[in-house]
Amino acid sequence: MAIENKAPGKDISAEDLLSKFPLAAKKSPEHKSEFEICGVKFGSKKIPVFAGPNMVESRDLILDIAFKVKASGADFLRGGAFKPLSFPYRSEKYNETREEGIKWLMESKEKIGIPIITEVMEEKYIPLISQVADILQIGSRNMQNYPFLTACAKTQKPIMLKRHYGASLRDWLGAAEYILVEGNEKVILCERGVSVAHTHRSSSRFLLDLQVVPAAQEITHLPVVVDPSHATFWRPWVEPMALAGIACGADGIMLEVHPDPANAAVDPLQPIDYKEFSNLISKMDSIAKCVGRYVKK
Amino acid sequence: MAIENKAPGKDISAEDLLSKFPLAAKKSPEHKSEFEICGVKFGSKKIPVFAGPNMVESRDLILDIAFKVKASGADFLRGGAFKPLSFPYRSEKYNETREEGIKWLMESKEKIGIPIITEVMEEKYIPLISQVADILQIGSRNMQNYPFLTACAKTQKPIMLKRHYGASLRDWLGAAEYILVEGNEKVILCERGVSVAHTHRSSSRFLLDLQVVPAAQEITHLPVVVDPSHATFWRPWVEPMALAGIACGADGIMLEVHPDPANAAVDPLQPIDYKEFSNLISKMDSIAKCVGRYVKK
Amino acid sequence: MAIENKAPGKDISAEDLLSKFPLAAKKSPEHKSEFEICGVKFGSKKIPVFAGPNMVESRDLILDIAFKVKASGADFLRGGAFKPLSFPYRSEKYNETREEGIKWLMESKEKIGIPIITEVMEEKYIPLISQVADILQIGSRNMQNYPFLTACAKTQKPIMLKRHYGASLRDWLGAAEYILVEGNEKVILCERGVSVAHTHRSSSRFLLDLQVVPAAQEITHLPVVVDPSHATFWRPWVEPMALAGIACGADGIMLEVHPDPANAAVDPLQPIDYKEFSNLISKMDSIAKCVGRYVKK
Amino acid sequence: MAIENKAPGKDISAEDLLSKFPLAAKKSPEHKSEFEICGVKFGSKKIPVFAGPNMVESRDLILDIAFKVKASGADFLRGGAFKPLSFPYRSEKYNETREEGIKWLMESKEKIGIPIITEVMEEKYIPLISQVADILQIGSRNMQNYPFLTACAKTQKPIMLKRHYGASLRDWLGAAEYILVEGNEKVILCERGVSVAHTHRSSSRFLLDLQVVPAAQEITHLPVVVDPSHATFWRPWVEPMALAGIACGADGIMLEVHPDPANAAVDPLQPIDYKEFSNLISKMDSIAKCVGRYVKK
Repeated sequence: MAIENKAPGKDISAEDLLSKFPLAAKKSPEHKSEFEICGVKFGSKKIPVFAGPNMVESRDLILDIAFKVKASGADFLRGGAFKPLSFPYRSEKYNETREEGIKWLMESKEKIGIPIITEVMEEKYIPLISQVADILQIGSRNMQNYPFLTACAKTQKPIMLKRHYGASLRDWLGAAEYILVEGNEKVILCERGVSVAHTHRSSSRFLLDLQVVPAAQEITHLPVVVDPSHATFWRPWVEPMALAGIACGADGIMLEVHPDPANAAVDPLQPIDYKEFSNLISKMDSIAKCVGRYVKK
Repeated sequence: MAIENKAPGKDISAEDLLSKFPLAAKKSPEHKSEFEICGVKFGSKKIPVFAGPNMVESRDLILDIAFKVKASGADFLRGGAFKPLSFPYRSEKYNETREEGIKWLMESKEKIGIPIITEVMEEKYIPLISQVADILQIGSRNMQNYPFLTACAKTQKPIMLKRHYGASLRDWLGAAEYILVEGNEKVILCERGVSVAHTHRSSSRFLLDLQVVPAAQEITHLPVVVDPSHATFWRPWVEPMALAGIACGADGIMLEVHPDPANAAVDPLQPIDYKEFSNLISKMDSIAKCVGRYVKK
Repeated sequence: MAIENKAPGKDISAEDLLSKFPLAAKKSPEHKSEFEICGVKFGSKKIPVFAGPNMVESRDLILDIAFKVKASGADFLRGGAFKPLSFPYRSEKYNETREEGIKWLMESKEKIGIPIITEVMEEKYIPLISQVADILQIGSRNMQNYPFLTACAKTQKPIMLKRHYGASLRDWLGAAEYILVEGNEKVILCERGVSVAHTHRSSSRFLLDLQVVPAAQEITHLPVVVDPSHATFWRPWVEPMALAGIACGADGIMLEVHPDPANAAVDPLQPIDYKEFSNLISKMDSIAKCVGRYVKK
Repeated sequence: MAIENKAPGKDISAEDLLSKFPLAAKKSPEHKSEFEICGVKFGSKKIPVFAGPNMVESRDLILDIAFKVKASGADFLRGGAFKPLSFPYRSEKYNETREEGIKWLMESKEKIGIPIITEVMEEKYIPLISQVADILQIGSRNMQNYPFLTACAKTQKPIMLKRHYGASLRDWLGAAEYILVEGNEKVILCERGVSVAHTHRSSSRFLLDLQVVPAAQEITHLPVVVDPSHATFWRPWVEPMALAGIACGADGIMLEVHPDPANAAVDPLQPIDYKEFSNLISKMDSIAKCVGRYVKK
């Protein structure tokens, strides 16, 4: 009776890769997408950083954050003007500031000179959001909203596709393929935590899946970004998981940054403050250098 | 209707920590166990490395591996003489070499001068294995075998407690408490992958849970080691996940090393070879330095 | 040290129920929505049955199935004309027959006299599909596509909301609330399997979560239907899980039925044939009677 | 591009069944183990019921419960004298009553004339517990304690093997094989809930996996019992899940019964009382008859 010696089954067979994900699949082991967005390189030695608040709360706040994160080395300002909530009731503030938020992002972009990534939730807002967004962010809950993926893809804007917390790598690449098939080649994958029973905080339910970084990079040429803020839902864990993301080969890091985390309008437990962000950029850069890459320009 | 602003529930409340895990729980945020095993420091700036084959296949093999991993910087030789299998049929080789394996480990220890960590599976073998083992390794499947934990603890040998792939942090600390309550203070936790639906190779079913490193360190003073070999079950992913382990604060790294991985007697897809190990030690050390620690003496 | 005696934490607190799911939440333990769709009662002693093929393959096939399932006791004909796929490539047949499929469903409805439930995937097709559908089915992948939920809700058509395979009960009720808040009160929940590591067939990854039936009914007044075909992905398991669904209190059963399962155009391993369906209806009815309900009129 | 038409991969291949689980595997589709324990048939049309308290709290209590559950139709009295806890601190009461508990079970057996199933946790207590137990129960946490499985098997006593909450069907059958290989053929499998992220009560973390009943019965001839009390951790859900267990083909049901659930010494939220048990037996019997089986003698 021999001890097991077989190769492990893969979720995605080589045949599947060719027939279902022909555009997302690597053509060779070395194949990696390289492209630029607003002068920032993706898929190369540079590791872009996306930073900003969960929600675009006010004009002054977003201008201040844009200035500070840019000064510390962020490549893109992130911030949600339109945001999904898992139930239909929202603060007055949210309803008043959605379209205002887009204007404030535009002002930040122009005044501070930092490119913008922001979430688009609904087909009808694609034109509005496309005016300001340099990258359209598609949230986890919309990952399998295929007609919406197609509509976003047709803008030919770069797209960041967040992984659903219940999605397999196969599901995720299938969603990316819906974008690629429209001829839109600037697709960025973003891991933001999966839902598992072993999670360490019962209200968050997310576990940052860093193993998916090498797993995805083994079969796809698309860059894979890691977002530790949403996954960990807990400020003290953001730094270690961001550093781990860099160490295991992530092609970008997305972070929530807020001047006064405890008073953030949404999810006040997860943002880091300016000083933590500035220190983290330096640490990420030093770890990036250990793996032949860099964060700071 | 206000947007949710509450602290996330924790799996383990402060009250639970005091009443159920009083010995495993930190006394203060800075509290961290520091101890030495065979002159190797745990819980300090030094990050110990455990390396060796999955199975002690032969005398010559284990002597060769002991020599090579020590030369490259391993602190402990790992290798299984007694190993659990998830069904009762084993190769002839396994049955013949179990007690021999302990002798070969002893010879490696004496000739090469490297301390030993090896798994103990059964109470009756504790005396035999204790003769050679500097650290008793308790495998995942025995994590909740409480009388066995007690029996191992009573040897007062240092113990590495691997996390079961279905265990929560709460379950894991509860098991550690069974060891601590016997007055045995040299307990090392080891994360080796959890079982989740989102896993990227269907035969392995394990996802290395690096988020548990800061999560565990937030509430316990015990050192937390990471084993990327078993979790990933795939040689190319061992290096990125080992580096990520260091970056997120792991207090040790356990690795499978074999001179000829493809012909390893057990799990031939997961070991790295000598050259990969030697390179990895250097990379781990450079990343350790970025987080104020070190791997190499 | 006392043995633990506390009530288990609930995913959804009573406070959450009131503030986040005020319309989905029960007003009293006995509160249960009762309504009729095309003369079929929901939320009462009657347990409606939805039966038909995965895909509306051809005019003749759907007419034949409509006739046969109605004769055996089905209350609604199910069948997908527009269907999501997890990657963007589809058979020619699918592309040709989508709008045709809606016509064939209309013909089945008129000739056979059976009401129709069919999936709507995209906002632009809501008017077309609403012409034939007596119930709009929202698939798992669209469960968190909130603007789409709102658009469907505004038709004031009855809606079946399938649970995403990664969604908690909380996520699911939040999605239902988006429909209810539009004044659309005929909302039917449908459980179709969750994604777990313990699943028994690696390609399907779904486990029918029957425990969610009493769990949901404890807090919501909405009817909860069970779909064992998609969850089990395996014809021999459909009957036992359908019967179990009735036994644990499901308010409806959805089944895939095909005259020649092995040659079904999609998912040929999961449909049952006419004879199996007819026998199953009788068995479900006898079990329904044991719990004070009925399937057959 | 054809729509997927392949058979789903199975966790356990036919080849694996033959080489790893030759004794647990069915020899033919109709193959089912049939055996008797104390005159109660297993694996036939009869569905045995195991009932009693979580913990043998006192002599009077266990005698009363034995009398009442037997009168209502229970086939075996269950009750834990030796019980695992996930941390090492226990009430004084527990420590005092462990060996007493075995005596009280013996007295119940003799006076009331009901056979006994009770958990054995440790090899050294096998002889003591074997004096009273007609079936040795091996708990979830010991499912992968292979030397202990072997020691229990060697008694040639019937064994109930509970599934670990993180174990796959493959892991579970592998554990059963360790018992069968000792020539012990009276092995009963028991499903008691798996750990998943979608669970509906955060403190319990268990989801009763009823799909494993047909899944296990497809490949093994061993009887499969269902325990809804531990899985649901919540009294109101016990009845619906017990009935569902019968409906999907379970070969036995295990239930926690206590005269005063709210004051049970352990897990007071999950037992049902005498009246609920008596009613449930009747309902289970009526559902059993719908699937060609029976509960009541």
